[in-house]
Amino acid sequence: MTAAGEEPTPSAGELMHALVERLYPLCRSITGDGVRTTLDIVGEYVPLEVHEVPTGTQVLDWTVPQEWNIRDAYIADSAGNRVVDFAASSLHVLGYSVPVSRTMPLSELREHLHTLPDHPTWVPYRTSYYTPEWGFCLAQETLDALPDGEYEVRVDSTLSDGHLTYAEHVVPGQVPDEVIVSCHVCHPSLANDNLAGIAVATFLARALAEETPYYTYRFIYAPGTIGAITWLARNAERIGRVKHGLVLACAGDSGRLTYKRSRRGDAEIDRVMSHVLAASERPHHVAEFTPYGYDERQYCSPGFDLGVGSLSRTPYAGYPEYHTSADNPDFVSPEAMEDTLAVCREAFSLLDRNRRYVNLSPYGEPQLGRRGLYDSLGGRSDAKQAQMAMLWVLSLADGERGLLDVAERSGLPFDSVAGAADALAAAGLIKA
Amino acid sequence: MTAAGEEPTPSAGELMHALVERLYPLCRSITGDGVRTTLDIVGEYVPLEVHEVPTGTQVLDWTVPQEWNIRDAYIADSAGNRVVDFAASSLHVLGYSVPVSRTMPLSELREHLHTLPDHPTWVPYRTSYYTPEWGFCLAQETLDALPDGEYEVRVDSTLSDGHLTYAEHVVPGQVPDEVIVSCHVCHPSLANDNLAGIAVATFLARALAEETPYYTYRFIYAPGTIGAITWLARNAERIGRVKHGLVLACAGDSGRLTYKRSRRGDAEIDRVMSHVLAASERPHHVAEFTPYGYDERQYCSPGFDLGVGSLSRTPYAGYPEYHTSADNPDFVSPEAMEDTLAVCREAFSLLDRNRRYVNLSPYGEPQLGRRGLYDSLGGRSDAKQAQMAMLWVLSLADGERGLLDVAERSGLPFDSVAGAADALAAAGLIKA
Amino acid sequence: MTAAGEEPTPSAGELMHALVERLYPLCRSITGDGVRTTLDIVGEYVPLEVHEVPTGTQVLDWTVPQEWNIRDAYIADSAGNRVVDFAASSLHVLGYSVPVSRTMPLSELREHLHTLPDHPTWVPYRTSYYTPEWGFCLAQETLDALPDGEYEVRVDSTLSDGHLTYAEHVVPGQVPDEVIVSCHVCHPSLANDNLAGIAVATFLARALAEETPYYTYRFIYAPGTIGAITWLARNAERIGRVKHGLVLACAGDSGRLTYKRSRRGDAEIDRVMSHVLAASERPHHVAEFTPYGYDERQYCSPGFDLGVGSLSRTPYAGYPEYHTSADNPDFVSPEAMEDTLAVCREAFSLLDRNRRYVNLSPYGEPQLGRRGLYDSLGGRSDAKQAQMAMLWVLSLADGERGLLDVAERSGLPFDSVAGAADALAAAGLIKA
Repeated sequence: MTAAGEEPTPSAGELMHALVERLYPLCRSITGDGVRTTLDIVGEYVPLEVHEVPTGTQVLDWTVPQEWNIRDAYIADSAGNRVVDFAASSLHVLGYSVPVSRTMPLSELREHLHTLPDHPTWVPYRTSYYTPEWGFCLAQETLDALPDGEYEVRVDSTLSDGHLTYAEHVVPGQVPDEVIVSCHVCHPSLANDNLAGIAVATFLARALAEETPYYTYRFIYAPGTIGAITWLARNAERIGRVKHGLVLACAGDSGRLTYKRSRRGDAEIDRVMSHVLAASERPHHVAEFTPYGYDERQYCSPGFDLGVGSLSRTPYAGYPEYHTSADNPDFVSPEAMEDTLAVCREAFSLLDRNRRYVNLSPYGEPQLGRRGLYDSLGGRSDAKQAQMAMLWVLSLADGERGLLDVAERSGLPFDSVAGAADALAAAGLIKA
Repeated sequence: MTAAGEEPTPSAGELMHALVERLYPLCRSITGDGVRTTLDIVGEYVPLEVHEVPTGTQVLDWTVPQEWNIRDAYIADSAGNRVVDFAASSLHVLGYSVPVSRTMPLSELREHLHTLPDHPTWVPYRTSYYTPEWGFCLAQETLDALPDGEYEVRVDSTLSDGHLTYAEHVVPGQVPDEVIVSCHVCHPSLANDNLAGIAVATFLARALAEETPYYTYRFIYAPGTIGAITWLARNAERIGRVKHGLVLACAGDSGRLTYKRSRRGDAEIDRVMSHVLAASERPHHVAEFTPYGYDERQYCSPGFDLGVGSLSRTPYAGYPEYHTSADNPDFVSPEAMEDTLAVCREAFSLLDRNRRYVNLSPYGEPQLGRRGLYDSLGGRSDAKQAQMAMLWVLSLADGERGLLDVAERSGLPFDSVAGAADALAAAGLIKA
Repeated sequence: MTAAGEEPTPSAGELMHALVERLYPLCRSITGDGVRTTLDIVGEYVPLEVHEVPTGTQVLDWTVPQEWNIRDAYIADSAGNRVVDFAASSLHVLGYSVPVSRTMPLSELREHLHTLPDHPTWVPYRTSYYTPEWGFCLAQETLDALPDGEYEVRVDSTLSDGHLTYAEHVVPGQVPDEVIVSCHVCHPSLANDNLAGIAVATFLARALAEETPYYTYRFIYAPGTIGAITWLARNAERIGRVKHGLVLACAGDSGRLTYKRSRRGDAEIDRVMSHVLAASERPHHVAEFTPYGYDERQYCSPGFDLGVGSLSRTPYAGYPEYHTSADNPDFVSPEAMEDTLAVCREAFSLLDRNRRYVNLSPYGEPQLGRRGLYDSLGGRSDAKQAQMAMLWVLSLADGERGLLDVAERSGLPFDSVAGAADALAAAGLIKA
C-alpha cells in the first residue's frame, strides 16, 4: 500500500508499457507521418537526431521510395455504415495502399480483402511496398457477416515524392568505438513487433546515459530493411568504428529470451550475450545466424559483416499473434520488457569491461603478498575466489584473450575476474 | 506382364549382372591374357584405350613383373581322373603358379594345397606374385576324399617377359580438371571383388557420356596395386589435373554402402559422398581412411595425396565369401549394383554443380523483387524455400565456400541451393 | 616363502617406502637444515648437486628470504610437563615461527594455537613464511584437555641471513634437450605431500640411469614456489633446452592417478601422459591446467610456458588427511608408489621414442616384400599388426606428426608403431 496522497514511482517496465500504449494507435509504415510522430514521442524520452532522406535517393542496391501518407480508409455498406474503418485500427488498410474511391459488389471487393480464417476474430497485417495495390485487412468473422451487395470503398492516401525518416540517439563513451542498437519503426499497430523493441531501446539509452560507458552507444530508429540500408549507405565512413551491435525486436512477450548470433558466429557480442544469458540462469535460447529476420540481415550482409546479433523474446513468426491485431499492448508486459532491458544492461556492462590485458610480470608468479593483494582480501568470504581470479588473469593475460575468455576458461564469475584485473592493474602487474 | 512378342527392356542392373556373368569364368591376374579378354569385353560397352607396359619397366618403387599365362592345370589320380581341374574354376590354381609337371604322393602334394577348413565346400583364392611357387586351391571336402597314393600334378603356365595391361576410358567434360574412377581387374572368378565394381564403373561411364559433365571423367581399369602404381608412374604430368576420384570395389553385395574417406579426410569428394549418402537416407557407413584396402592406397600415398575415396558395399574381408568360390554371380544382385550406380551418379552430379560463387552485391541485401526473383516464384509451393536458398547463397558466396557448404550450413536441399545460385547468377548478382 | 637364511630382495616400492619413513621425522621448510639433511639422505640414492642461494638474492619477482632453523619448541604446563612438543612431531610448530620464550595464560595462548575441530585427533600443518608470527599446531582433543592457567611457551628458532637450498641430479641422454622432473622438498612430516613424490623421483632417476635415454633428464629437488622460482631465475639460459617436464606430488596414496595438463594443454607431455594412462587401462583422471597447485604454476607461468604437467594420485586438498598429521607413512603404500613410478617410466619411454619421421618413398607404396619387410614377419602372430603399422607409418610420416600421432590415428599400440618405424628406418624408407 502507498501512503495516502502519494503516487508510487512507476517501474521502468511500467513506463515502457505506457510508451507502447501511446505509440500503438499510430499508423507507421516505411515512410510517412506515422514514423515522424513516433519519433517525436520517443524524442520526449531521449533526444533524437532525425534524418529525412529524399525519395529517389540511391541507397546501396535500393532506391528510397515515394512517401506514403493516409488520412482515412473504410468500406461502407449500402446504408453508409463503415463496416471496416481505418479509424478503428491502422491494420485495416493494406500498408502502402494506393488511393481508391469506388463502389463495387462484394464479389469484386473480395480480391482486395485479407483475413485469417484460422483466427476468425483477428485482423492480419499486410503490406505491398513495391507493387502498387490497395486492400483491406479484416477479421474473418466480419467478412462472413457481410451480405452481398454494393460497397463503397475508399482509401484516402497519397504516394508522392517526399522522404524516408529515421533517427539516431548517441550516448557518448570513453572511446569513439561504437556499439549500435537498432530497432525497426515501420510496423503500425503491433505491440511486440516492434513497439516493445522501441521502448526497450529507449530506456536502455536512458540507463546508459546515467553513466559514462566505455563504448559510444548509437541507437538507430529506422524503418525495416530500407531504413537500415539507408543508414548503412549514409554511414560508410562510420562502419569501421562499429565494433558491436544489437538488433532489438519482439522484446516484450512472455516467452524466453532468444539471442541470434551474428553472421560471424563468434563475434564478441555473440560471446557476451551467450555468457550473460547462461550465467543468469534464465531460460533462453541461442540461435545460429540465418540471413532472414530483422535488420541484422543488413548489418551482417557479407560486405559489412558487422558483429551485430539480435535479441528477441519469442522470435518473429514464432507466435500465432505475430503480424495480427492480437499483437496488441496486452500481449506485452512490463515485466518482460524489464527483463529484456536487464539482460541488455548486463551484456553491455560486461562488453564495456571486457578488456584485454598483458601480464607485465610473466616470468613466474609475481609475489602478490608483498603488494598487499592477499591482505586486501582478509576476512572476505570470497577471498579464495578473488585469489584464484588474480592467478587466472595473470596466467591468461596475453594481450589476445579478454576477461570474458578468462571467466569462461576458469569458470569464475565475470565480476570476480574483472575485479581481479582492476586490482592487478592498480598494482602495475598488468596493463590493458 | 509384357505384351506378347515383346521383350522387356532390361534394367541397368540386369545389364550389369549379365556383364558380371560373362566376365566371371575368365582367369585374370595382374598380367596376362585374362586381363586382355576382360578389357575386350568391357570395350564392347565403352571404348577403351588399352595400354601395354613391358616387363621390367620401372614404375615408382616397383618393376613390372613377367607376364603370366596359363592354359591348363589339374591334379589327376592314378586312374587319370582329374580330381582338381582349372577348367572348372580359375580359382583352382594358385595365381602366378610356376609350371610344374610331376607325379608325387599325396603327402608331398599337400604342401601345395590350399583349403578353407571352416568352409569345407568353398575353394579359396590364393596368389604368389613375387615368390615363385606353384599350388592348387580346392574344397576341404575334396581334399578329405582323396585317397593316399600317387597323383599327377600339372600346371601348364608360362612366366616370361611380356606386358602389364590396363585401360582407360575418358568422358570429356567442360573443363580439363579430372575425376578418376578406378577399379581393379586382376581378380579371377570372383564376382563382388571386383566384377561388380567393373560393371558399375562401366555403366557409370555410359551414363555420364549421355550428358556433358562439368569435370572430365577418366575411368581406369587396372590390376590392383601394380596397375595403379603403373598408371601413377606414367601420368605424372596429369596428376595435377586430378581433382577428385573414387575407387569402386565390392560394389554388388547385399550389404549397406560404405564410403571410405580419402587420406585428407575432408577432401571435396569426402564431403560430397557423405552428404549424398546422408541426404538419401540410405543405410550406410562412412569410414575413415586407412592405408590398407584397394588402390586408394596408391592414389592417397602421401606423395600424391589425391582426393580419392573408395565406395564399396560390404568392405573387403567383411563377408565370409570374400576371396572364395562363394563370391560368385549369385552373391551380387542387379538391385545392389543399380543402387551403387545411383549413388555414384548422384554424387558426381552434385560434385559437378558444387561451384564457388562470389556475391557481387555484398553490401546490404540486393533488391530481389526489382529483378523479378520473387515474382518468378509466384505460386510455387517451394517459393519460401527458394527465397531462403537465395538469401543463403548471397550470405555465404565468398569465393571460398561452395554450394555444398551453403546446403550444409542452411540445412536446405542441395538442389534448392543450386537452383538459387543459377537464378542469382542469371541476374548478375553472383559469379562463379 | 623364502629359503632359510636368505633375505628377499626388497621391491622398488618397499625401498621407496623405507625412504619415506626415513625422511618423515625431519623438520623441513623452505630453507634450513631440514632441507639439507633431506638432500643428504636422497644423495645416498642418487648423486646430487646441491645449490645454496644467499638470503636477499633477487629471483624473478621474489627475494630469497632469511633462513629459518629450529632446535626445540614446546608448550609446558605449570608443572613443567610439555603438553605440546616439537620433538614429537615437526608439525607442532607453525612453520617459520619467530622465536618466543614467555609465560602466558591459556586465554592469551589460544590466539597462537591451530587445530582441526572436524578431526579432533589430527594435528594441522600451518606456516607463515612472509608474515612474522609464532604459533603451535595441535590436536583439538589436546587443546580441549588443557586446564586454564599459565603455560610456558618456547620456540627456540632462528631467522637470519643464510641460504635457500635446492639440488639437481642429471641423467645424461643422447641429446642435450632436457626433460625436467621436479618435486617440492619443503613440507615437514607429511608423507604423501611430498615424501612420496621425492621417493618416486629418486627411483625414477635410478631407473633411467640404467639405460641411456634419448633426452637428458634433470631432477629438481627444491622448496615449493620460492625454490622453483629460484631455479628458473638461475637457469635462464637453460630454459630453451627444456622440452618437457613433470611435477611429482602426492604420489603415494591409494587413489587413482591424476595427470594435470600443462598450461599449453596439448604439449607433447600432455599427449604422452594421456595416452599412457588410457592405454594402460588404469583408472585415472586427466585434468585441465589451472594456475593453482604445485610448481607447475611457475614452470607454466606465461613467460616460460613450458610443457610441464603434474602427476599425482589424489590431488592436493582432495583428501581429508591433506596437510595434517594423518598424512603419515601409513597413508602411502609401496604399491601405490610403485604404480606411479611405473607410469612415469612408461611415459618417458614413449616420450623418448616419439620421433618424427619423413617418408623417403612417398609416391605409391614402396615394395616392402622386396626389402624383406614382409618375410621378417613370417609366422609371427602379430605379423598382420606389424604390417599395418608399417603402412600407417609410411602414410603419416610427414615430418610433422610423431609416432604417437600414428599410434593414436591408427589405433595400434605405440610399441608396434615404434617397431615398424625402426624396421622402415633400417630399410632406408623413412628417416627421423
